[in-house]
Amino acid sequence: MPISGPPSAAPSSSTPLGVAVLGAGTMGADHVRRVDQLVSGARVVAVADPDEARAAALAAGIDGCRAFPEPLAALDAAGVDAVLIASPGPAHEEALLAALDRGLAVLCEKPMVPDPEAALRVVEAEAKGGRPLVSVGFMRRFDAEHQRLKALLDARELGAPRLLHCRHRNLAVHPYFTEEMLITDSVAHEFDAARWLLDQEITAVQVFRPTAALPEHTGVNDPQLVVFETDGGVVVDVEILANGGFGYQVQTEAVCERGTARIGEAHGLMTNTAGRWGGEIAQDYLTRFADAYDREVRAWVAAVRRGTTVGATAWDGYAVAAVAAAGVEAQRTGRRVPVELAPRPAPFMNAV
Amino acid sequence: MPISGPPSAAPSSSTPLGVAVLGAGTMGADHVRRVDQLVSGARVVAVADPDEARAAALAAGIDGCRAFPEPLAALDAAGVDAVLIASPGPAHEEALLAALDRGLAVLCEKPMVPDPEAALRVVEAEAKGGRPLVSVGFMRRFDAEHQRLKALLDARELGAPRLLHCRHRNLAVHPYFTEEMLITDSVAHEFDAARWLLDQEITAVQVFRPTAALPEHTGVNDPQLVVFETDGGVVVDVEILANGGFGYQVQTEAVCERGTARIGEAHGLMTNTAGRWGGEIAQDYLTRFADAYDREVRAWVAAVRRGTTVGATAWDGYAVAAVAAAGVEAQRTGRRVPVELAPRPAPFMNAV
Amino acid sequence: MPISGPPSAAPSSSTPLGVAVLGAGTMGADHVRRVDQLVSGARVVAVADPDEARAAALAAGIDGCRAFPEPLAALDAAGVDAVLIASPGPAHEEALLAALDRGLAVLCEKPMVPDPEAALRVVEAEAKGGRPLVSVGFMRRFDAEHQRLKALLDARELGAPRLLHCRHRNLAVHPYFTEEMLITDSVAHEFDAARWLLDQEITAVQVFRPTAALPEHTGVNDPQLVVFETDGGVVVDVEILANGGFGYQVQTEAVCERGTARIGEAHGLMTNTAGRWGGEIAQDYLTRFADAYDREVRAWVAAVRRGTTVGATAWDGYAVAAVAAAGVEAQRTGRRVPVELAPRPAPFMNAV
Amino acid sequence: MPISGPPSAAPSSSTPLGVAVLGAGTMGADHVRRVDQLVSGARVVAVADPDEARAAALAAGIDGCRAFPEPLAALDAAGVDAVLIASPGPAHEEALLAALDRGLAVLCEKPMVPDPEAALRVVEAEAKGGRPLVSVGFMRRFDAEHQRLKALLDARELGAPRLLHCRHRNLAVHPYFTEEMLITDSVAHEFDAARWLLDQEITAVQVFRPTAALPEHTGVNDPQLVVFETDGGVVVDVEILANGGFGYQVQTEAVCERGTARIGEAHGLMTNTAGRWGGEIAQDYLTRFADAYDREVRAWVAAVRRGTTVGATAWDGYAVAAVAAAGVEAQRTGRRVPVELAPRPAPFMNAV
Repeated sequence: MPISGPPSAAPSSSTPLGVAVLGAGTMGADHVRRVDQLVSGARVVAVADPDEARAAALAAGIDGCRAFPEPLAALDAAGVDAVLIASPGPAHEEALLAALDRGLAVLCEKPMVPDPEAALRVVEAEAKGGRPLVSVGFMRRFDAEHQRLKALLDARELGAPRLLHCRHRNLAVHPYFTEEMLITDSVAHEFDAARWLLDQEITAVQVFRPTAALPEHTGVNDPQLVVFETDGGVVVDVEILANGGFGYQVQTEAVCERGTARIGEAHGLMTNTAGRWGGEIAQDYLTRFADAYDREVRAWVAAVRRGTTVGATAWDGYAVAAVAAAGVEAQRTGRRVPVELAPRPAPFMNAV
Repeated sequence: MPISGPPSAAPSSSTPLGVAVLGAGTMGADHVRRVDQLVSGARVVAVADPDEARAAALAAGIDGCRAFPEPLAALDAAGVDAVLIASPGPAHEEALLAALDRGLAVLCEKPMVPDPEAALRVVEAEAKGGRPLVSVGFMRRFDAEHQRLKALLDARELGAPRLLHCRHRNLAVHPYFTEEMLITDSVAHEFDAARWLLDQEITAVQVFRPTAALPEHTGVNDPQLVVFETDGGVVVDVEILANGGFGYQVQTEAVCERGTARIGEAHGLMTNTAGRWGGEIAQDYLTRFADAYDREVRAWVAAVRRGTTVGATAWDGYAVAAVAAAGVEAQRTGRRVPVELAPRPAPFMNAV
Repeated sequence: MPISGPPSAAPSSSTPLGVAVLGAGTMGADHVRRVDQLVSGARVVAVADPDEARAAALAAGIDGCRAFPEPLAALDAAGVDAVLIASPGPAHEEALLAALDRGLAVLCEKPMVPDPEAALRVVEAEAKGGRPLVSVGFMRRFDAEHQRLKALLDARELGAPRLLHCRHRNLAVHPYFTEEMLITDSVAHEFDAARWLLDQEITAVQVFRPTAALPEHTGVNDPQLVVFETDGGVVVDVEILANGGFGYQVQTEAVCERGTARIGEAHGLMTNTAGRWGGEIAQDYLTRFADAYDREVRAWVAAVRRGTTVGATAWDGYAVAAVAAAGVEAQRTGRRVPVELAPRPAPFMNAV
Repeated sequence: MPISGPPSAAPSSSTPLGVAVLGAGTMGADHVRRVDQLVSGARVVAVADPDEARAAALAAGIDGCRAFPEPLAALDAAGVDAVLIASPGPAHEEALLAALDRGLAVLCEKPMVPDPEAALRVVEAEAKGGRPLVSVGFMRRFDAEHQRLKALLDARELGAPRLLHCRHRNLAVHPYFTEEMLITDSVAHEFDAARWLLDQEITAVQVFRPTAALPEHTGVNDPQLVVFETDGGVVVDVEILANGGFGYQVQTEAVCERGTARIGEAHGLMTNTAGRWGGEIAQDYLTRFADAYDREVRAWVAAVRRGTTVGATAWDGYAVAAVAAAGVEAQRTGRRVPVELAPRPAPFMNAV
């Protein structure tokens, strides 16, 4: 739920929303293509990346789009109505604060700001501005199956939930991926998704790490089992697997009073061949969540044109950062670590 | 594959394609919403429907869009670059010929033209014009699962196909739905899909009708089993069920030399509850094929802007009409009825 | 349903039933092992096979069991109360008539007697004897999933059935397997199963044969599509695949007035690995139907001890032979061939 | 793996094994029926139950079987070669020690002996006797899917396992069922199954209890999440659900180095009806594990006749009791509780 306040001055319905995209890596390039080709009512007018050639290559394909090496220059470019931040995490805080300072709506890729204290500064800056401007790109909130599960839980179709089981499995991670990033980068999605699905905050985290000898092909100790508790008394377990080797798989099962509900079973084309039946597993998140990303950016453009936000708010971004920090400590110590959140500023009072 | 020829004069990339939508019923309204909200590079500039109020209601929500009672007036409206025909089948021929006469690209809902001879006139009119202009809206060609099956068959991943099994199940049909329409309206999709998946023409059709007493709730004798053969020696069976009562389900299984491949298994959120496990079945084709329709119209807009067509051609529309006519005779007589196609005009030589 | 009549003189409950097994091939050996190790209340007392060494090897492992080269000698051996015929089809008629002549209960592997006229002689011989003695080994009637489907159909849980879709897929067949045997050996199972599931007789058969070039690895033109109709107005289609190359798979889907029901989906252990999810397919019928064979022979032993029969009767064996003969003609001619059954003898009046 | 030692004096192959069944409740009655009707080479010669009428009713249907109110009297009855203990847990210790004292082979239902110290006395008594006599009825070891998973793990088909996820869901429990019994009665199965699947001992247990308000229909706080660790460095989580309300469901997924493997998906007859696809869930363990119980008792009879044991040993029974005691403390305190096992007596040195 967006924070309340007077709507921003959105462009009229006949003029497309001018979007600056910060970051021209995989995610940024994907968003540029999406806004350009798949989203009505918006166009990319600026692309920024320290690697100027990369930015220029993206901009070249789009009428009236300019490339910049500096993110702030892109924000100040002509025709920019809103910002899509897809740069690396450490660059998010400055970009967010600059956008807020300019009164620009932002869609910021997750994690919003990795450090909880810095994340809180973004929350406070937005609250002070009095207008809802920040959306955080937890795309699962726009995935059709996640939305169906959320609806089932909200309507108490099977009664109240008491347990969630989550699986988050990657094909392989880059060599620079660390064990901490299992929590801050990967389980961050489950922290947000569980908060959203349950409409509850997380109160404590514990991490179980197998100690069996690691296979040679992996640099991180995975899988791990992350167990957390909520202020509504629900227990959530998450298997996080970085180098699963077989594909990208995200599954959630809710155990409720009168039954269970689960999403994320692979499907699509199925074969019988050579003694086996079955189907294909998506190999990466851009494929698995392609529809969710499309719907997210479309919903964001529509919301910004109405002067509001969609999906996860800055508060959600902060809460996930705080839980992740507790999770990293839990991972290091093996202990159950409580989560302490700052008081929630008034504009975020009713939001999860 | 589109017919070849010099590209039509497409609008420049910075101007959206102006689309006239003929028909403001369920399908037409859905396409108006789609072009307006989900498709980049196009806008609805005219809507036509004999029920002028219905047309006006649709047009009212869109900047610069006008309503017309007459389809031909809509074609001649300012800013019309292309036509989307979603009016009832009997109105298609006149609209298609008028569009061809004006050199306008057309996306025509299926069935293109029900009568084979009339369909052939459309084929000939387009061929005479020398430019590819007609796309027929067999949306399955844009469904992700159908495309994956087509790719598997084209690549001979499991060897050559020898049998196809198809299921086409509707929740319920309107009281005016006739037994003939099982063939002309419903199995028409399988006629096209099989031709496209196999890259083969259909040579004969036979229909098996159960004679068990009909349940009271249905006005048509369903299900029926339609069996047809192709010029590549493949046998295809189709279960067509009009009043299944449980949902909308479209499934295809290809039996190939080294295995089988199937699509259309229901999936999504699954529950355990009250002694049963399982999931939901889509209730209608607009839900089941929502993504396919979106991709179809996006691909069509992009193709028209490049001066070409996508998906099924006028030839495909004619061939399906000819097969359906044989199917109706087969249904009436219980006999195997051969299909005779007209010679294929040069521009359609390589197309299925 | 067994034919009625006075019960045969069954052994007392404290003495095991003495069984003679005719045929020491794969099926016979499997039955010998089954009766010896898995069935209470019965023991193998005689094994007959023209290959005397093979018979002797089987008999050697069992206390008090003797080997014979001649089936009739085995029937006359001391302690024989009942006969299990697992010899090749051409030997069945003589063995059945000899057993009936001696008043011995028989479980005869399918096909009972391939020639319809000869099969009718067995029916008449049993009817004349006045006691129910013949059970035919259509083991699907004892498969848990088939029994659940039969119960659903009998109870009209989804209303009356109107269509059945069947799949019958083998891994590979021996070089001596002929195209005719697709009908007489393989689809024979579906002829019986459909009659039993529906409680209806088959009235006509038609066979569709793909004419696409055959893959090199196969000597029979497969798959084929066999379509038949029943006296209850139901249409049944069967895909028969002899050299599928991927496993053994038997599936049935019934399309009823208010929904569909299907059995035979593969299951068991499922994996995610190397980009694929799925499970294993059974490789042969002895594995797939192991439980059904066990339950069949147990039920038969219990029935014989009560003086009656179970499962398919001699009439069922005859009806399947008659339908198969029509099916072979249909396969040869491509035409729809009607099935003419002899009048049903009184003892079989209520049976399917 | 059974303990080693000289074989017991098994009956000759022509005489059935005489079995005394202690306990004539649901489980005992089921075993009496099983031995009598489904198991070759054994017969029930004595049934004992404090409710003598119940014992007599069971014995009445079986030739030569006698009923006793006292278990020890049944052990001393004529013709008793082996004992099947299906009486309530508190009666197990006395019965086991009496059987060991008489040199009788025993199949004891789980939990073998709930108190770890008492369980250890049984282990020691058997070890002292020098002959393998005790089998514990953890029937999952005889379930086909569990055996397939065990084979996959043993062969390292997907590499070494690092995590196990288990689900154990009951339809409903009796009013006398306590929260402790979630651990001692229900998760006891997972304690044994995980030890057996992994060939590892459990070293610590922790229990997570949702604190959301309990639904009215249940007297125990369920589901709970039990997490335990093994001496091989594997982490196992178990969802235990006593009053799930939808059926009986047991699932395990192993996460290994190169993929995952899971068992326990419901299957069988599937329907499409009223907007839903899916199938039935077994309602109780006697249905779900019917085949496993049959195979267990058959394997036990065959083993006893060879002078050995099968399945879980007395050591396994003790280890599970010790882990369960730690689990109960973990449940009460919310803390991670280490498991301390006694030294393993020599005969059990190689066994898990």
